[in-house]
Amino acid sequence: MVLDLIDNPEVLKSLSLQELETLAEEIHKVLIHKMSMNGGHLGPNLGIVEATIALHYVFNSPTDKFIFDVSHQSYTHKILTGRKEAYLDPEHFDDVTGYSEPKESIHDFFTMGHTSTSISMACGMAKARDLTGKSENIIAIIGDGSLSGGEAYEGLGCAAKLNSNFIIILNDNEMSISNTNGGLYTHLKELRDSKGTSENNMFKALGYEYKYLEDGHDIKSLIDIFQSIKNIDHPVVVHIHTQKGKGYKFAETDKEVWHWHPPFHIETGENIRQMTRENYDDLVADYLLKKMKSDPSVIAIAAAVPLTIGFNKERRELAGKQFIDVDICEQHLISMAAGIAKNGGKPVVATFSTFFQRAYDQISQDICINKCPVTILIRNGSIWAGNDVTHLGWFDIALLSNIPNLVFLSPTNCEEYFAMLDWSIEQSDYPVAIRIPRNGVHHISDPVDTDYSVINKSLMTQKGERIAVIAVGDFYQMGEKLVNSIKSTLGITASLINPRYVSGLDQDLLKSLQQNHEIVITLEDGILDGGYGQKVASFFGDSNIKVLNYGLKKEFLDGYNPTEVLREYGITDDNIINDIRRIMDYTH
Amino acid sequence: MVLDLIDNPEVLKSLSLQELETLAEEIHKVLIHKMSMNGGHLGPNLGIVEATIALHYVFNSPTDKFIFDVSHQSYTHKILTGRKEAYLDPEHFDDVTGYSEPKESIHDFFTMGHTSTSISMACGMAKARDLTGKSENIIAIIGDGSLSGGEAYEGLGCAAKLNSNFIIILNDNEMSISNTNGGLYTHLKELRDSKGTSENNMFKALGYEYKYLEDGHDIKSLIDIFQSIKNIDHPVVVHIHTQKGKGYKFAETDKEVWHWHPPFHIETGENIRQMTRENYDDLVADYLLKKMKSDPSVIAIAAAVPLTIGFNKERRELAGKQFIDVDICEQHLISMAAGIAKNGGKPVVATFSTFFQRAYDQISQDICINKCPVTILIRNGSIWAGNDVTHLGWFDIALLSNIPNLVFLSPTNCEEYFAMLDWSIEQSDYPVAIRIPRNGVHHISDPVDTDYSVINKSLMTQKGERIAVIAVGDFYQMGEKLVNSIKSTLGITASLINPRYVSGLDQDLLKSLQQNHEIVITLEDGILDGGYGQKVASFFGDSNIKVLNYGLKKEFLDGYNPTEVLREYGITDDNIINDIRRIMDYTH
Repeated sequence: MVLDLIDNPEVLKSLSLQELETLAEEIHKVLIHKMSMNGGHLGPNLGIVEATIALHYVFNSPTDKFIFDVSHQSYTHKILTGRKEAYLDPEHFDDVTGYSEPKESIHDFFTMGHTSTSISMACGMAKARDLTGKSENIIAIIGDGSLSGGEAYEGLGCAAKLNSNFIIILNDNEMSISNTNGGLYTHLKELRDSKGTSENNMFKALGYEYKYLEDGHDIKSLIDIFQSIKNIDHPVVVHIHTQKGKGYKFAETDKEVWHWHPPFHIETGENIRQMTRENYDDLVADYLLKKMKSDPSVIAIAAAVPLTIGFNKERRELAGKQFIDVDICEQHLISMAAGIAKNGGKPVVATFSTFFQRAYDQISQDICINKCPVTILIRNGSIWAGNDVTHLGWFDIALLSNIPNLVFLSPTNCEEYFAMLDWSIEQSDYPVAIRIPRNGVHHISDPVDTDYSVINKSLMTQKGERIAVIAVGDFYQMGEKLVNSIKSTLGITASLINPRYVSGLDQDLLKSLQQNHEIVITLEDGILDGGYGQKVASFFGDSNIKVLNYGLKKEFLDGYNPTEVLREYGITDDNIINDIRRIMDYTH
Repeated sequence: MVLDLIDNPEVLKSLSLQELETLAEEIHKVLIHKMSMNGGHLGPNLGIVEATIALHYVFNSPTDKFIFDVSHQSYTHKILTGRKEAYLDPEHFDDVTGYSEPKESIHDFFTMGHTSTSISMACGMAKARDLTGKSENIIAIIGDGSLSGGEAYEGLGCAAKLNSNFIIILNDNEMSISNTNGGLYTHLKELRDSKGTSENNMFKALGYEYKYLEDGHDIKSLIDIFQSIKNIDHPVVVHIHTQKGKGYKFAETDKEVWHWHPPFHIETGENIRQMTRENYDDLVADYLLKKMKSDPSVIAIAAAVPLTIGFNKERRELAGKQFIDVDICEQHLISMAAGIAKNGGKPVVATFSTFFQRAYDQISQDICINKCPVTILIRNGSIWAGNDVTHLGWFDIALLSNIPNLVFLSPTNCEEYFAMLDWSIEQSDYPVAIRIPRNGVHHISDPVDTDYSVINKSLMTQKGERIAVIAVGDFYQMGEKLVNSIKSTLGITASLINPRYVSGLDQDLLKSLQQNHEIVITLEDGILDGGYGQKVASFFGDSNIKVLNYGLKKEFLDGYNPTEVLREYGITDDNIINDIRRIMDYTH
């Protein structure tokens, strides 16, 4: 294989065009093979094999610097920069992450995973280059999906004024994650249809030189166009038209599903593992569709990841006008939801915990100051969710529970989740956030509260003495288990509390614990710093009650094993009971 | 005065053109008069008097809905909607806030104050209107400055697809807060110079109908153009050219200074109160300029408010390439800074506490995961800073101190601030945030540490017993006073600690307190929830030490008096000593 020769990108420069094309075919196969076993962002990566080869052929990484937006599409880049073993040999599949990672290679500059930052970061690198008298090429590679993000536009506006080398490769594969919806795409289509000659050109309007390439998979054309702007001394946008999923027929046809795909059978494209278990995505989607049917003012809004509430293509069609996808625009998502609520609609917004980080200000200002009754569904807020360092769901409690006026609910089981959701949609006094449990779908038979308007009222599910365990959200089942262990090892019947609200304390209940409890234990599936447990510790600060807070440490982990981490953090029955013993021995 | 007739906007419809023009002149005078006594956003408001009159003449607020971006330019709107007394009668000046406020009038829909949200919120209101079968006009009024913000672009892209009535009035007064810098403004200039006929048109490119009006102060032309799009059934952008500060010669000439201006003498434009006291803005500007001279890699970056580090026009010119203003683009500000640090520069970014809320994700992902050595200067993080509900500086400790890897310093005096700043700029291991004190410039004569690389090491400034006071940042002087009161009322020599780092605890020091202290008191100028004190309470949760946390309550206040609020929150020597007594009496 030609690929056998590629230990570093310089080797490319000695290859013939034929060899480069052969290399591209090999890489297509390698990617399909690895993803079939490992899962990954197959579609985006298949779409950019040739362009990545051409970039490394023309430029001189790492002196010339590539910044891939999001960086989920940089598998070929990794293959070409000394990391091919991680794509060829299953034993080494996990040597690389799914994103840019400086620890792996000097050809990667940032650990990243959120969209629309590449132009800004590259702009900064260009500015530093100019200030320190260097002269390398700086190239941001951004997809049309990421271009919808507000920060990309901020970066575009600023980089346009650089007066020095700055290259943006716009990888237009006509697809955000799902079908794109914004006005930007009308314009990109106009540019593509006119082969880049349209008089209306947003990039030229901003002051960029602009070039267009229709066949973004033709290596010769790619090399020619990149060569033409190498060492350019002003900002330029090179708009290349590519096809997501190119080279694998299923990925070419169903682009949304193959954006990220779990392991599959190559011949049929079928998942290796079928998802048959009950899951919250399907449950909430069906709930919402039913709600929408009976109430035309209910509207679900996603930001490019509608599957976070199970809204696949069929469901989106069923919802019609009552579903909107705003593309990768979380800030707009939130402010728009505030507007919907203000004018008589009932908005339900949903995305991953990690992506709500992009809209903190809008949640605080537009939704919370104005007390707009918006329902915010947080998916993947948990240690058990995605373990990429750039997609951790560890921070949303600390981030959002400290915003005034937000009622932040953390359900412990399925019935409670849907009771909270239904209450939230129907009420109009509070902005509400609900953290979707991530430890499987737990059912209970006891009835649950349907009214959550008495804010911050906790639920004592087991009344005991001496020790109280407050177990938040999807750590509740751990709390149940702990209480049983306390009974069997210490002979104490502990109290068990489901706080339900992480945005505030049930002061009456906590005060009442002082009568016959010595120790309060809190368990939360989020970082301790800024979290729920510390509020409880502060509440009991001037009392004799001892408080032990268990939760996640304030750190960034990558590719971790949740069970190991929980053990390391001491969130095990054994360790907690040891801590209890230590306190009790000391005081008695 | 014609203004005497205007109790509600419907009255406008009965006026002649002559009367409307007279009304405009009267309002110009009224605004100048109130601002001369009260201070305010004079420039922006003078620029939009005629357009606001024309809008209310043509449309039917509040059925037709106006959303003013930021809303700092809505004084005329308030005057016309039943609130003129607040602009005519000094006794009633404070009846209105400086921003949109639903509590004042049904003509205001949101409490707001941050930029670039109007299109999104209006888009949401339009969506709800369509879903619920209503048919009013929905109009977002946004300035060219706010248009630089990423969220405006997100909103633009989404609203373009509305297929129903949606009106954007782009108020182009050729000015962001200071001279605008991005590529967008090149394009807006092209549109203005071509009187809206330029083939290149970003709004048309996105799918909007587009209209241009050169003289945005001519009431007849304004009425005509607004009439032409009233009840339109698709999205349209009406681009009007106005002059910031129109009608007051000083504001017309020096637009940056008159964006927001303190009370002034009408005849001369001079401030009534001269700022002669030493202040941190001038101090840090001079420090940075000196640093820049000796080190070409040091670069200061602002996001439209360069005066947060004292970089007025003269200083910006002195700094040359080493100062950048990215316009109202906080997300870009942060990611760009990460890029600068990554490629050999030494970036210092600055803005208000409240505006850093817009870049939480970028701070977390780009700067902190990547440990980019960026220096973040936080201005107005304090109860003593701006007391508009939308510009509170109460939340930055809770927001930023819980991000892993960020070293968040809170200096207690001038010497310490500059020692921390110098260390931060020179080191390259950590991302650093520094909270600029807001209680005046305090000097000390004792030497301060110059090296802050031993992270989280607190400083015990007075060694005592039984009671330890940990006083954060600009509450340190309160801590000194409290310690003196404790001495004089309780006869106890308390320990006093300056923690310096709010991002983590000095565990050794805190442990050592257990030897001879019973009570630990924390004081912080930020909300308690998610803040520093709660971390301390958690640390001592399993010990016998009692912890009392004092700080701000998790709530949104508007137009508050800091001294009254501190008293209400119990942050007074008297109250704290009572709390101490209560604990001591109980235990002894």
